[in-house]
Amino acid sequence: MPTPFTSPHSEDDILKRLSRHFPEASDALLIGRGDDCAMLRPGGPLCVSTDLFLEDVHFRRSYFTPEDIGYKALAVNVSDLAACGARPRAFTLALGLPADIDNAWLDAFLAGMADAARPWRMALAGGDLSRCERLHVSITVWGEAYGAPDETVFLARGGAMPGDSIFLVGQVGLARVGLAVLERHGRAALERWPAACAAHLRPQPQVDAGLMLARAGSNARLPVLMDVSDGLARDIPRLLGCDEDGKGGLGAALVLPRGQLHPEVSRYAEAHGLDPVEQAWLGGEDYALLGACAPDMLLPLHAAIPGFMTIGVVTEEGVTCNNRPLEELRGFDHFRGDAQ
Amino acid sequence: MPTPFTSPHSEDDILKRLSRHFPEASDALLIGRGDDCAMLRPGGPLCVSTDLFLEDVHFRRSYFTPEDIGYKALAVNVSDLAACGARPRAFTLALGLPADIDNAWLDAFLAGMADAARPWRMALAGGDLSRCERLHVSITVWGEAYGAPDETVFLARGGAMPGDSIFLVGQVGLARVGLAVLERHGRAALERWPAACAAHLRPQPQVDAGLMLARAGSNARLPVLMDVSDGLARDIPRLLGCDEDGKGGLGAALVLPRGQLHPEVSRYAEAHGLDPVEQAWLGGEDYALLGACAPDMLLPLHAAIPGFMTIGVVTEEGVTCNNRPLEELRGFDHFRGDAQ
Repeated sequence: MPTPFTSPHSEDDILKRLSRHFPEASDALLIGRGDDCAMLRPGGPLCVSTDLFLEDVHFRRSYFTPEDIGYKALAVNVSDLAACGARPRAFTLALGLPADIDNAWLDAFLAGMADAARPWRMALAGGDLSRCERLHVSITVWGEAYGAPDETVFLARGGAMPGDSIFLVGQVGLARVGLAVLERHGRAALERWPAACAAHLRPQPQVDAGLMLARAGSNARLPVLMDVSDGLARDIPRLLGCDEDGKGGLGAALVLPRGQLHPEVSRYAEAHGLDPVEQAWLGGEDYALLGACAPDMLLPLHAAIPGFMTIGVVTEEGVTCNNRPLEELRGFDHFRGDAQ
Repeated sequence: MPTPFTSPHSEDDILKRLSRHFPEASDALLIGRGDDCAMLRPGGPLCVSTDLFLEDVHFRRSYFTPEDIGYKALAVNVSDLAACGARPRAFTLALGLPADIDNAWLDAFLAGMADAARPWRMALAGGDLSRCERLHVSITVWGEAYGAPDETVFLARGGAMPGDSIFLVGQVGLARVGLAVLERHGRAALERWPAACAAHLRPQPQVDAGLMLARAGSNARLPVLMDVSDGLARDIPRLLGCDEDGKGGLGAALVLPRGQLHPEVSRYAEAHGLDPVEQAWLGGEDYALLGACAPDMLLPLHAAIPGFMTIGVVTEEGVTCNNRPLEELRGFDHFRGDAQ
């Protein structure tokens, strides 16, 4: 007999806990959660995105604290809003809870999620609860498009032109190192690899940079933009409009100098006989922003956005990184078979 | 090593399949799926809701066809929009797929979901894919509030007054019978219990009735409204503003005559020595609409809404059904221990 959400959690009790971390009233909502639907306050066009965050697929409870899980589940969704230049406003939360989750765990999880919501005062608009064998978090986020309602800006992936500069905001390769050391050493890895572990456990969505890019673009040709979630090697072709095999779109000549990589990426690569640039190139779960813009926008963007870094130029065809073609570099991903 | 979505499904291939069932362009969306976010067309305030639909919690693959799963996953979400008097517009889909799901299964699943979307031309605005041990569907829906943007109506649960008439649109108890016979006999049950099985496998969200109630209410005191998903016995107190124990809110005197129940409910109860009214009262997954309105609205509502049925009156306190108190009737739910 299928059974909906069950003990040891009372649904009412969980709803009360939610209210401690997320106020029911918000200027993003006309009607808050607690009814069959919530009602979003009308405004300009809303950007919307959904991401799953699943135990033993996207995270492990052995080295993610409950706070980390709550934080990252929301942060990876917020990163999609950042990638469109939108301002985060609200989200819904669907939660599948295994029987061993207790109230202390839930409170910590919600506190971590509230940490991720706080910078943009995001409202929790509603959700659903069920029992589940493994912890399951499904989130949908809304953001206000920049310039809405009158001069709405949406930073899309496509539309770069040959000669455009390719840029990056945020670290690449660092979260990959974090995943590797956490898988190997658990939370003991935090001592030697604090930045790498933090990049994997608590990624920082680049919302402010996305808003800056939208503002800069509103007076010029819009930058193209996306977030790097599957690694530069897979995401660069997407930015350029290529298919899965890297065909059919524009090209790029990229330069990733070793000196621009995070010291923990270099140190990890050295310790394991790996090329640090390859680690950065393959990456994964970076949640950096990757984009392209007209070269004359570079100077103001460098000045306005901390961590803004130019990494190459859009070409007619073919992707190279440090003069090596994409096909050759892809071969270095030993995890590719099971990683996508 | 956590791995994102993996073979045998190529993400690109699944996205192409999605496009066969759900066009990317829609008048509900300014920007369709395929980028980091979709962008919703601005309008009045939007109603929003999220529901999980999980294998072996909410459905079994042994007697749900893939079409049924796709259909019901969306229909139960649409029912929440109906319960607020909103018009369904768009949804996002987060899908966790076990390794044994093949392309034919996916196509059938999406065809069933498209069946549920078609009456309101709902757009698929985006989503996420992951591998998962058991099939997992998480959906967020949007609807346009009735009368938006100028005279927005939202049919909430609270706000009934003593003397208001309590009404129901749709069958109660029928899906409970369907669940019982499907659990026992699998799809062979469809032959003897076609209506009960259909009520469980393919519930019909009462969107048109919700819109009619919103329209009727816009010229009078608004009806209160909710959808009956956990059975009348649990949902009536929620409509009346009571807590989980039935305290603190208004009361209701309900009458559920045997003659108003579906013949399959009566036949099932008779065959198992059960009281058919108790079966209807306990229900579960009915997705009927339950509401209360001023008595002078009854005549036009009866005329306008097929299946509209008055079942009682709001009182100052205490809930009774056919003169028996709620506490006594609750005792008949033998499944209550594991059912919530």
